[in-house]
Amino acid sequence: MADSFFIDCQELMSILVIGTLAYDSIETPFGKAENALGGSANYIALAASYLSEGIGVLSIIGEDYAESDMKLLHDRGIDTEGVVQPEGGKTFRWSGRYHLDLNTRDTLDTQLNVLLDFDPKVPEHLQDVQFVCLGNLDPAVQISVLDQVNSPLFTICDTMNFWIENTPEKLREMLARVNCLIINDSEARELADDPSLIRSARKIRAMGPQTLIIKKGEHGALLFVGKEIFSAPAWPLEEVFDPTGAGDTFAGGFVGYLAKHGKVTPQTLKGGVIFGSTLASFCVEEFSVKRLLELSTDEIEQRVLAFRNLSHFELLEESVGNAVT
Amino acid sequence: MADSFFIDCQELMSILVIGTLAYDSIETPFGKAENALGGSANYIALAASYLSEGIGVLSIIGEDYAESDMKLLHDRGIDTEGVVQPEGGKTFRWSGRYHLDLNTRDTLDTQLNVLLDFDPKVPEHLQDVQFVCLGNLDPAVQISVLDQVNSPLFTICDTMNFWIENTPEKLREMLARVNCLIINDSEARELADDPSLIRSARKIRAMGPQTLIIKKGEHGALLFVGKEIFSAPAWPLEEVFDPTGAGDTFAGGFVGYLAKHGKVTPQTLKGGVIFGSTLASFCVEEFSVKRLLELSTDEIEQRVLAFRNLSHFELLEESVGNAVT
Repeated sequence: MADSFFIDCQELMSILVIGTLAYDSIETPFGKAENALGGSANYIALAASYLSEGIGVLSIIGEDYAESDMKLLHDRGIDTEGVVQPEGGKTFRWSGRYHLDLNTRDTLDTQLNVLLDFDPKVPEHLQDVQFVCLGNLDPAVQISVLDQVNSPLFTICDTMNFWIENTPEKLREMLARVNCLIINDSEARELADDPSLIRSARKIRAMGPQTLIIKKGEHGALLFVGKEIFSAPAWPLEEVFDPTGAGDTFAGGFVGYLAKHGKVTPQTLKGGVIFGSTLASFCVEEFSVKRLLELSTDEIEQRVLAFRNLSHFELLEESVGNAVT
Repeated sequence: MADSFFIDCQELMSILVIGTLAYDSIETPFGKAENALGGSANYIALAASYLSEGIGVLSIIGEDYAESDMKLLHDRGIDTEGVVQPEGGKTFRWSGRYHLDLNTRDTLDTQLNVLLDFDPKVPEHLQDVQFVCLGNLDPAVQISVLDQVNSPLFTICDTMNFWIENTPEKLREMLARVNCLIINDSEARELADDPSLIRSARKIRAMGPQTLIIKKGEHGALLFVGKEIFSAPAWPLEEVFDPTGAGDTFAGGFVGYLAKHGKVTPQTLKGGVIFGSTLASFCVEEFSVKRLLELSTDEIEQRVLAFRNLSHFELLEESVGNAVT
């Protein structure tokens, strides 16, 4: 094959993921995992890889990051040319303990390590992607990535309470430049400084992101697009084994579905929310990224169909008005 | 018309509602209402009256209960022959203050008054109803009503943390005898003594009620029937003006829809949840029962249709499997 073939392939890169590649130590009511593979970029890219090809990761690792862990991304066709590994660096590590209800957690330890010096450079072949997914990072770093890409079709970002509280101006600057924010409900209320979730959504969209997804954990997710609101149910799990990475997995499934279709419409956005929810529901069944390495087309298909049944209803009346006496 | 006509009419009584007729004093972040009409039987019966005829109320009031307030039920065709008014009695009164987020409230004062002596007698023409809706009351009183009706098609009950904590045996005895429990999420967890909502649902259904509805406030409701779970969204309100009675209104819309169709199937149960959610979403727009006195067929129809759009999605793929690479 000629070189041009490879150039064509590179032009097909469709999703740029920026985020962390990390080792997590996690305690849940069901057990412990020490130095388990984690980080937003791992969850996002692995989840997206079930739906789309042409995924590139931008991240930073230490010398202690196992080659076998990097190979997990390669095995799913994910491009890691944008991952840098400075000499003598140590990988980002996070340690946390989940409470009994698994909705809340305490951070026991955060070692930023190489993240302190993360100044991402987008490789040339990733500058023309259609979709950019900015994992939860310093908004200044997220802005730097936006500065380096050439008019993507759709930009998605995540954030967290730390940036809302400590770098509010930079966060606002970043939000003004993205198409879509994915955020959880407590953070949405905090960002908008409003106890009403629906009013918070209106205020946040006025900050920039026209498309907004509010994740509500076991209560599902709300998508705001144009004048529409879409309410997606959560998969009814009796037990969440480990919630780590569920939000990033949601984002990965969401952007993967959009990239697969190459267009952003209310319909593809809703489908993205359903696939994101589906992949997240698998993620929490095991520690770390374990479930995201072994999913089959069949089990994803079955669960998406079950998601549809979960919220589907038909009224007996031909006209709803006939129901009212 | 001959007397037989009236007998026929009475045989058509389809819903027996037992609950309180009360006066509430409410403070919300939006204002105050003193001695506003309230009570579970008012909310349930008024809501059900938009969907079904043949509704009878079983309750107790004091001499201070206004005739004009009783007339509100009559105006909507509701039978109040089962409402007793002991001499010298005073109507049940409740006073509460809602917190800023409206999800939590403090009870400021409870005056049981006539409720202390409530020993309901089901009038003969209400003993053969198809549907019994037991509002939140002492489970011993709920059981007494079940003892007086002749094999109804479907029995529905509500309860609250007070009975879970103070009369657990009587509550279990009552639960073993009903077809359906409607309960909120925190009470479901308390009743099952389990942090997992989905596991709590399984445990509660094992106590008796084969059909279970867990209300989640702004997160919608879950219906468990047979092996199915149905997740209904909540109406996305920017502001809840007064949440008082929303749960009872839900129950009223739910039983009203079932009674309208005279059959209990997964389809009518799901429709009931949607109509219950719709009527509850109107209820919270104003203080007291105000909105439940003035609804039009058209506005109910519009909101039910909007409810359908809220959770409806279609995937682009003909087969879901095609979405997964």
